[in-house]
Amino acid sequence: MRQSKSLIPTFKEIPAGADIASHQLLLRAGFIRQTASGIYSFLPLGNRVLKKVEAIIREEMDKIGANEMLMPALQPAELWHQTGRWDTMGAELMRLKDRHDREFALGATHEEVVTSLIKDELNSYKKLPLTVYQIQTKYRDEKRPRFGLLRGREFVMKDAYSFHSSAESLDEAYNDMYQAYTAVFTRLGLNFRPVIADSGAMGGKDTHEFMALSEVGEDIIAYSDTSAYAANIEMATAADQYETTDETMQSLDKKATPNQKTMQEVADYLQHSLDKGLKSLLFKIDNKFVLVVTRGDHEVNDIKLKHLYQANDVELATERETQQIIGAGFGSLGPINIPEEVEVLADYAVKYVRNVTCGANEDGYHFVNVNPTRDFQVSRFEDIRFVKEGDLSPDGEGNLHFARGIEIGQVFKLGSFYAEKLGANFLNEQGKASTLLMGCYGIGVSRTLAAIVEQYHDENGITWPNQIAPFQVHLLVMNSKKEEQVSLGDTLYQLLLDKGIEVLYDDRKERAGVKFADSDLIGIPVRITVGKRADEGYVECKLRRTGEQTEHHQAEVIEYVQTLID
Amino acid sequence: MRQSKSLIPTFKEIPAGADIASHQLLLRAGFIRQTASGIYSFLPLGNRVLKKVEAIIREEMDKIGANEMLMPALQPAELWHQTGRWDTMGAELMRLKDRHDREFALGATHEEVVTSLIKDELNSYKKLPLTVYQIQTKYRDEKRPRFGLLRGREFVMKDAYSFHSSAESLDEAYNDMYQAYTAVFTRLGLNFRPVIADSGAMGGKDTHEFMALSEVGEDIIAYSDTSAYAANIEMATAADQYETTDETMQSLDKKATPNQKTMQEVADYLQHSLDKGLKSLLFKIDNKFVLVVTRGDHEVNDIKLKHLYQANDVELATERETQQIIGAGFGSLGPINIPEEVEVLADYAVKYVRNVTCGANEDGYHFVNVNPTRDFQVSRFEDIRFVKEGDLSPDGEGNLHFARGIEIGQVFKLGSFYAEKLGANFLNEQGKASTLLMGCYGIGVSRTLAAIVEQYHDENGITWPNQIAPFQVHLLVMNSKKEEQVSLGDTLYQLLLDKGIEVLYDDRKERAGVKFADSDLIGIPVRITVGKRADEGYVECKLRRTGEQTEHHQAEVIEYVQTLID
Repeated sequence: MRQSKSLIPTFKEIPAGADIASHQLLLRAGFIRQTASGIYSFLPLGNRVLKKVEAIIREEMDKIGANEMLMPALQPAELWHQTGRWDTMGAELMRLKDRHDREFALGATHEEVVTSLIKDELNSYKKLPLTVYQIQTKYRDEKRPRFGLLRGREFVMKDAYSFHSSAESLDEAYNDMYQAYTAVFTRLGLNFRPVIADSGAMGGKDTHEFMALSEVGEDIIAYSDTSAYAANIEMATAADQYETTDETMQSLDKKATPNQKTMQEVADYLQHSLDKGLKSLLFKIDNKFVLVVTRGDHEVNDIKLKHLYQANDVELATERETQQIIGAGFGSLGPINIPEEVEVLADYAVKYVRNVTCGANEDGYHFVNVNPTRDFQVSRFEDIRFVKEGDLSPDGEGNLHFARGIEIGQVFKLGSFYAEKLGANFLNEQGKASTLLMGCYGIGVSRTLAAIVEQYHDENGITWPNQIAPFQVHLLVMNSKKEEQVSLGDTLYQLLLDKGIEVLYDDRKERAGVKFADSDLIGIPVRITVGKRADEGYVECKLRRTGEQTEHHQAEVIEYVQTLID
Repeated sequence: MRQSKSLIPTFKEIPAGADIASHQLLLRAGFIRQTASGIYSFLPLGNRVLKKVEAIIREEMDKIGANEMLMPALQPAELWHQTGRWDTMGAELMRLKDRHDREFALGATHEEVVTSLIKDELNSYKKLPLTVYQIQTKYRDEKRPRFGLLRGREFVMKDAYSFHSSAESLDEAYNDMYQAYTAVFTRLGLNFRPVIADSGAMGGKDTHEFMALSEVGEDIIAYSDTSAYAANIEMATAADQYETTDETMQSLDKKATPNQKTMQEVADYLQHSLDKGLKSLLFKIDNKFVLVVTRGDHEVNDIKLKHLYQANDVELATERETQQIIGAGFGSLGPINIPEEVEVLADYAVKYVRNVTCGANEDGYHFVNVNPTRDFQVSRFEDIRFVKEGDLSPDGEGNLHFARGIEIGQVFKLGSFYAEKLGANFLNEQGKASTLLMGCYGIGVSRTLAAIVEQYHDENGITWPNQIAPFQVHLLVMNSKKEEQVSLGDTLYQLLLDKGIEVLYDDRKERAGVKFADSDLIGIPVRITVGKRADEGYVECKLRRTGEQTEHHQAEVIEYVQTLID
């Protein structure tokens, strides 16, 4: 494509409100433009990359036998009422009324539509399993759209849905999809990790998120330094494995700790380390009060509490409720002399402590030399804390490290949730009506594009991997006033096109400096510059990523470029 | 693709509410399903055809140097307020509010968004001309969605926009696009006509509609039987060419015509043919009253009136207004003795009549032996009627015939309308700010798919043209219980895949009759049936369109199929 005839508006300044590299560079290099907050146009270069990412996803989906289709964005409200998501999605679900005042949702996802479709068409075990997918625009009214394509309100997604007559069949499809996602992100050149994730409201089912590692990621991943274990920090398991101590139990004693409220304040006042204190928090779990005890250096993970109790709501009791029930405020809670109706739940780590401190349930006082079992009873010990860097990996291999990640995909065993709500049954081999089992699988296509830029850029611009670069070759004429340069440029442009090589030809009447800067910014892998030695038939090749430069005669440059591309 | 693993739900019954062949067949053959009124899902087969149509459009757009991009569907209301279309689009424009109560339109088209984008990026004549396009989902809240994909509320469209510094440049882009559309529809195998169309509200600019000829089309096309002339009936020109008569002028006379209201009633009563009467209608054209006179066998074309007066509103005066101004009701109007303030406008054909009848502007009376000029004055003669079949073609070659058409594309010179409203200027060669000129160009992609089915079907199902058939070959195993048939089927399936041939493999455990009926319904061009002679290695090939059947040995059938495809 001739650059003079295309829409590639580049600029130098760091755009206002763009805080991360992908957002800045995609704007500066002319790949995207904002139409409204969280809503973007893909300009020609951005669209080319998007289509290449889509093509790779499509190939891998087709390989595992998924059927591509295309469902509408306008979805009747009734379907969303049936699953309850019309209410639970809240303001994130965009809604509108048609001219007859009928309500519609703008598809944030397609479980409702696809299940209602399949319900009418798939009535027998003979037609199962089935996996369908689409690449389509989705709408979510994010509270804070930001980071360009990373968190937008209108975005491109690949969503897939599988339907099954048995859990084994769902497991198979889930594994196929997991492998396909691994293949997609590997082909895209991403540094990524599949991590164990939280299945959220639907509870209890398997789910993995695919995370592109990046410092700008909003998620924290805990991963083993020696094994394949990786989990979203919310879900990372702390093993029931701690060092035991042979310290002698001392006598329980009560000390005044006036005005010492936080764990750190109490530890400093009583002169011990944080891990020699017990942290006690009163939680309200679906209206039941539970005293949750962890080691002072650990943090309670309320998602683990939620799963443990299969609860809908988990929140801290208010100070008022705490005073009412325990008779002391937040700063002086502890598991000793707790009212019988309050369950005491402790983290595994609490089992192993000796001679520690805890609140005395009396404002301004703490117990010291506290020992579990001797001094207080625990209804059960469980894994209820966030893991810390350096913790043992739960698979027993290595220690946990933390990294930030951008969620680019998720695979999810939905089970029968949607099929039940929408009445999607099939006749099983015995001729009896059974509820369909489902899986759902998403890739944030436009978000993946941004994640790639986060991993592929340097101080001068983007450094696209070959397989998804907007063009394979950037051909530059240094001085458009020199006839021999233009003539050689035109010749090479045609030769490259004839070979089926995707080439962006910078034929603009701009200074060489502008052209080089734009070329670095845009980030096409191979650059051919027609410059001063054009009259002798020599041109220069430069690799964007490594900066490697070589000179070639026009007679052999195409062949050289061809080898680079292959 | 194995049919047993795909979603191709066929059925025999004519679906309720589906009145035309394409709607019925696309449903019955499992290409689409309705999600809500005018809103469809494309099932795997439908999606495959859609993607092939899109690919052909993309190729032809790229050939003329148009830049593909992708703009959002969510469009800020402010942009639509600026062009006035927030109001003029009425209920057809779907609207919604985000969580912050900001208003958005769901893109019915993208003139606003693209012009506002280009305005910020294209500031110099040096970057002009530029043509961009996208293939994207559009939303229009049709009053009466019907005919399946022909008139939907959510549909796929290719829309292109071109930007220019001069009218000549716009003409060039318009012609390029006209040629590209001709190439697209030719490659799609459509019987179509580009026709002169009405430019509507924007007035006066060139526009052509591309019409797929079809009896179910909602538009009527007038075309010459010997030349390339074709126009939407609204726009077809009636030439100022009529036979003259040497009949002697008779004396004007007034006759009672009690209770004779219509042209036909009066003609019957006075015993003459319809063309021997004058039809007079009082119109209100932007609040000015005009008496419009045509021959009795002709119909007034109010779009021509609108263009003639460059009017916003053209409507018939009410009976009350007519009585007030003329002193007579609808049935007795005529151009003789008309109040001076009422302009008399007559069709060209009126010039050539002699001794005709017209209303006497007195209820229950008509004049006979009326002759123009002698008996009444006309302020001007113009082409203001609908053409009739058999009329002379306005290019002087042949006679006009009528056909029905489905509008599948339109090319349009917008001029400066949007650029002015949105303040899209550029610096011209003299360094002065000028308003951009624009063209816009659309293809209804999903509608085109339906139009193809209208032209390609028979009593048994769809008969897809090769280039956009969902698969190239339909491979059937007649009896899935016969091992030798399954084994040969599997072998051929693999061989076809290895050759890169797109094959749908009916490996289902269904009766042969069901498979044949489904195959005819789906309409893949080439069918290979593995049947009774499988043990000898013989299979049958059948062409869907012609019904031609041949028998082939497995050793040479792939080669035969390859020649069919090429």
